[in-house]
Amino acid sequence: MTGQTAGGAIRRHDPRVRGFASDNYAGVHPEVLAALALANDGHQVAYGEDDYTTHLQEVFRAHFGPRAEVFPVFNGTGANVTALQSLTERWGAVICAESAHIQVDECGAPERVGGLKLLTVPTPDGKLTPELIDRQAYGFDDEHRAQPQVVSITQTTELGTCYTPEEIKAICDHAHQLGMAVHLDGARISNAAATLGVPLAEFTTDAGVDILSFGGTKNGLLVGECLVVLSPERVRSIKYLRKMSMQLASKMRFVSVQFEALLAGDLWLRSASHANAMARRLEQAVKDVEGVTVMRPVQSNAVFATLPREVSERLQKRYRFYFWNEATGEVRWMCSFDTTEEDVDGFAAALVEEMRGSATIA
Amino acid sequence: MTGQTAGGAIRRHDPRVRGFASDNYAGVHPEVLAALALANDGHQVAYGEDDYTTHLQEVFRAHFGPRAEVFPVFNGTGANVTALQSLTERWGAVICAESAHIQVDECGAPERVGGLKLLTVPTPDGKLTPELIDRQAYGFDDEHRAQPQVVSITQTTELGTCYTPEEIKAICDHAHQLGMAVHLDGARISNAAATLGVPLAEFTTDAGVDILSFGGTKNGLLVGECLVVLSPERVRSIKYLRKMSMQLASKMRFVSVQFEALLAGDLWLRSASHANAMARRLEQAVKDVEGVTVMRPVQSNAVFATLPREVSERLQKRYRFYFWNEATGEVRWMCSFDTTEEDVDGFAAALVEEMRGSATIA
Amino acid sequence: MTGQTAGGAIRRHDPRVRGFASDNYAGVHPEVLAALALANDGHQVAYGEDDYTTHLQEVFRAHFGPRAEVFPVFNGTGANVTALQSLTERWGAVICAESAHIQVDECGAPERVGGLKLLTVPTPDGKLTPELIDRQAYGFDDEHRAQPQVVSITQTTELGTCYTPEEIKAICDHAHQLGMAVHLDGARISNAAATLGVPLAEFTTDAGVDILSFGGTKNGLLVGECLVVLSPERVRSIKYLRKMSMQLASKMRFVSVQFEALLAGDLWLRSASHANAMARRLEQAVKDVEGVTVMRPVQSNAVFATLPREVSERLQKRYRFYFWNEATGEVRWMCSFDTTEEDVDGFAAALVEEMRGSATIA
Amino acid sequence: MTGQTAGGAIRRHDPRVRGFASDNYAGVHPEVLAALALANDGHQVAYGEDDYTTHLQEVFRAHFGPRAEVFPVFNGTGANVTALQSLTERWGAVICAESAHIQVDECGAPERVGGLKLLTVPTPDGKLTPELIDRQAYGFDDEHRAQPQVVSITQTTELGTCYTPEEIKAICDHAHQLGMAVHLDGARISNAAATLGVPLAEFTTDAGVDILSFGGTKNGLLVGECLVVLSPERVRSIKYLRKMSMQLASKMRFVSVQFEALLAGDLWLRSASHANAMARRLEQAVKDVEGVTVMRPVQSNAVFATLPREVSERLQKRYRFYFWNEATGEVRWMCSFDTTEEDVDGFAAALVEEMRGSATIA
Repeated sequence: MTGQTAGGAIRRHDPRVRGFASDNYAGVHPEVLAALALANDGHQVAYGEDDYTTHLQEVFRAHFGPRAEVFPVFNGTGANVTALQSLTERWGAVICAESAHIQVDECGAPERVGGLKLLTVPTPDGKLTPELIDRQAYGFDDEHRAQPQVVSITQTTELGTCYTPEEIKAICDHAHQLGMAVHLDGARISNAAATLGVPLAEFTTDAGVDILSFGGTKNGLLVGECLVVLSPERVRSIKYLRKMSMQLASKMRFVSVQFEALLAGDLWLRSASHANAMARRLEQAVKDVEGVTVMRPVQSNAVFATLPREVSERLQKRYRFYFWNEATGEVRWMCSFDTTEEDVDGFAAALVEEMRGSATIA
Repeated sequence: MTGQTAGGAIRRHDPRVRGFASDNYAGVHPEVLAALALANDGHQVAYGEDDYTTHLQEVFRAHFGPRAEVFPVFNGTGANVTALQSLTERWGAVICAESAHIQVDECGAPERVGGLKLLTVPTPDGKLTPELIDRQAYGFDDEHRAQPQVVSITQTTELGTCYTPEEIKAICDHAHQLGMAVHLDGARISNAAATLGVPLAEFTTDAGVDILSFGGTKNGLLVGECLVVLSPERVRSIKYLRKMSMQLASKMRFVSVQFEALLAGDLWLRSASHANAMARRLEQAVKDVEGVTVMRPVQSNAVFATLPREVSERLQKRYRFYFWNEATGEVRWMCSFDTTEEDVDGFAAALVEEMRGSATIA
Repeated sequence: MTGQTAGGAIRRHDPRVRGFASDNYAGVHPEVLAALALANDGHQVAYGEDDYTTHLQEVFRAHFGPRAEVFPVFNGTGANVTALQSLTERWGAVICAESAHIQVDECGAPERVGGLKLLTVPTPDGKLTPELIDRQAYGFDDEHRAQPQVVSITQTTELGTCYTPEEIKAICDHAHQLGMAVHLDGARISNAAATLGVPLAEFTTDAGVDILSFGGTKNGLLVGECLVVLSPERVRSIKYLRKMSMQLASKMRFVSVQFEALLAGDLWLRSASHANAMARRLEQAVKDVEGVTVMRPVQSNAVFATLPREVSERLQKRYRFYFWNEATGEVRWMCSFDTTEEDVDGFAAALVEEMRGSATIA
Repeated sequence: MTGQTAGGAIRRHDPRVRGFASDNYAGVHPEVLAALALANDGHQVAYGEDDYTTHLQEVFRAHFGPRAEVFPVFNGTGANVTALQSLTERWGAVICAESAHIQVDECGAPERVGGLKLLTVPTPDGKLTPELIDRQAYGFDDEHRAQPQVVSITQTTELGTCYTPEEIKAICDHAHQLGMAVHLDGARISNAAATLGVPLAEFTTDAGVDILSFGGTKNGLLVGECLVVLSPERVRSIKYLRKMSMQLASKMRFVSVQFEALLAGDLWLRSASHANAMARRLEQAVKDVEGVTVMRPVQSNAVFATLPREVSERLQKRYRFYFWNEATGEVRWMCSFDTTEEDVDGFAAALVEEMRGSATIA
């Protein structure tokens, strides 16, 4: 690797620096970068009629079953909002957890782009249940109420928890009985499969999920997510929705080949399992440190913890990470495909040091 | 280049095949691909607070002046619709040519995502003028009429024509006098600079353009366009509009570094000049072929021509290209950064062959 | 009529003043006002489950056939935009004349409320034809193009012209063959029936129209229009669309009873025939005045004419009316249910006077 | 009153029947009906340039102060959604109570028509407080979060409770300090003034409210609400927003004159005070009935109560009213301007009878 391209782009960052802020802070897995080069050169039809996107159908069907249809898009918000539009009439509403990414982290894109109303439910752990869904699943046939037509769940959740296949099946059965469809936001779906130790289809296709957003970026891609339609009969035409939602890539081959690199072999699972393992290693390293409390089950690549605020703030000067909740002081530590054991151990050691510093001061 | 990555992605296409269908059919310039690797590894803040995006401000200011602000996005439709929202109140309308990409090729995204009304004007050559603008620039202050608040022009136009700096200045002056702002869709802005032989600022910043969509993909990038704000005082906050329009890349460093590779040196101009030259070479090669008529001035990387339909159809079996107008049989031949002289000559020879075939048959 | 209510409302206008500006300038027909009192007192279920709205189904079915379903709304824009949403998927587009009310007089409501794209066609007389429709009816199945799903026509048109039943049938047949539905904006539908001398169904239900906006306000109602569904199988649920489009009246009985007053007997036809007759009387009175040219066939309650601008301006000081086209100086004179023969004759006399004044000055 | 108009409209209901279902079930106050006749006849400029709408400015300024501007609209949803759009950029969000009408009873109109995101807060009594607002008032400047730009409160609330002027002032001060504006949904604002015994301005203009929806329909009008702008400097142009939101009445004089009848004298206060008094009378009559519990303070024209479900169901066969909460069996009894003491006493007697019936059975 030279530090400069012919045209003048220069390496501007120190590639040795890693933190625990987000799996979006990591770069691109080398195998993915290599795949981009593979797909390069020559001319390929734009907007998805290229050989890579065509082949991608097979790649996804191997994971999600023969009825699956895949539509690459740019990002998670784009995937989610396109999916939700595909499951709703103009008057539809979406039931989701109060902590759902679509509710808290998309700047109102579901409402503004899709005209969608979100009906939220507080949850203890980011997970919906049939009972929680029922808190919003009413008013069917009443024109004064935005009509609940979709349940949207996130796997793994924004709180790092993971639904079991049975839990998802119960949600899907319940939703379907009520005439609603189910969307799964799988920004970290690979982490879920790694945690559960089951094939992807087991908690999606087989559980009754109708459409899902398959996350690539947080698992080592450069850019790209995929919409995966599992119940074509419940889904409005993604083709038009994707384009009008400004999620149709012209040189789509470069999105698709990344997903081939991820999913044709086991890269998706290797990377996710590694990230999960690093999170568990971190949990083990800090859970017994006095003054540190791990707040939630570590079921993916995130550790949520509380510790003295001044410790967090000193630690943030050494490693990047975020407060999850400014009010309570809860922090979130994310691991990614490129987090190393040394990173974790170094971070844990720094934490212990800073805790001691606090103790001394106190 | 091996034909397979470790994970299983396989080269699926013949990289020697090139056509004249679209500059989106081309791949990624090698210098751009190299830049991606430069920006890889280590952790960088997501969503645009990385070192590459920060530096990109300087890169764009070198071209567009010290007040320019740049916001990378995913694609051209995203850039356009975000820009148009930034210049309008909710009741605003956009005056554009009937042939504008925002009108004909974005599946209604301006209307659906932005709630924007487009007020279109037929043009002979894809170019607006103050007089043509006046055909829609009326009804100010009348609540029954969607209020014209923006003029949107495309440079180079969808018909391959190129505004002079003076023409753009006249449009901007006129629009501003009427209280409207000006957006420039620069999907092929580099081709315009190459045609005009002037710096980018001369027909944008200096001419009075308020915001522009800077095209990268058609000029050799993998993915990415940039919004460039030139008149910050006329533009609503792009920051929120970009996010809610689902155009905010998480690993933005990889979009930004591509633009650095393009614009820090002269890659943008080299590539565009080359594509333009190839189009002119093609024009020269075919313009005197009997039965072929070049329909429009070749002022960028496109050649529009009419020829017998059966010839076009036979030729399409050898080289990919599109009918521009099914009714009239007009075809469009696009060149790109990777079009070679041999490609052009081979295509022209094939055209002559097929014309002869027709002549013989006739 | 006393000039003041108990609570303090005062008559503030001179009820003897009438002009030719708009049929919206007229007030409420006395029979309609009487009907409001009939429906008053006591409690009736809100939001359309009252006895008057229930009965209204029968009233409309007597005119439009046994499959018709009627949904009262507030105004014409509301009726049109609700109707267009009911016929489209989110990616749908609407083909209409360039002069259509939905295009020029609704401040972008179709785009903003419905996310609809309008595909406009210039027409000589405000009327579409299958051939004119074909100028926009293409690109089916192409995700880059907003999908034409509806043809919207206005009867009588904004230019005072009237489609024959055969012309509408040809449009409907053509639209249906192309997979599109047909909306009829009937803001002045009663004037059309009066002009044609046929039952309402003959140029709507029987011609193949799928949904129509039935105008009441311009024909003597206080407030209210109706959506009339003629092809229930092509129409998405109006129930929700009406509510979410903010067109659901709580005390709907008072909208419905007005339509009963209008349509249970012949008030609709009496009023429209009278207004039409007054327009023809006006045409006769002015068409031979030197310097005045009647520009369009008088097929409803409007007369379009050109005359010297200074004459128009002087005349406007005596009678209210509007310039239809500021550029050409064309004016529009509208008659309404309450226009009298004396009004027409007085206006024509004033016109002649002012023409003479001009001649003298010249 | 004869039972039929000339044209054939027939009185179809029994005007002696009244219930406790909704103040929307009542008809039109006779003084309002008289005012409609006053404004009738002759021609008046459409779309709000008539003498009645012009005068209405004075009428509202007398109540709300010299800076107030009034814009008549059709209904409450229209008023609310237009108001909220006038206070927000495209990326804005609205903080409101979970029980707010805009959240639960408008079929998603704020989201669909305005692209607005609602950020809801559970409340014990339908009333927000600065502390409750703070549960959603965060994330300013963070592009991932829809930006809180408005606090919307309802006076009186959907739960029949009434803010004091001080409570509203505290909310406005807090909102303004955070850079947010305040909208007041005054569907029952007259009931609030009656309860508080203060002028309308005291808890609106003087308290810092920026814009309000002034309810007319629930207080005896036929149709119509008004937007009242109190802080013109914080409000985007209502003129365009009203039209594009399909809330611009053509024959606006008939909406405006109703408000003149209501507000020029004391009809608004007489009617609201009466409705409130009837609710208190009902409360008094039932509160000591064993098995009946009045659930909320009676501070407007509503009584919320629980009683045995079978009693409610039997009672509903005699008088119309609604379950407020199907799950808990809580019912809502609304009084209106035309509720009589006999109605209340008769209803209370019926309630006692049905309770006895239950007791006997038990």
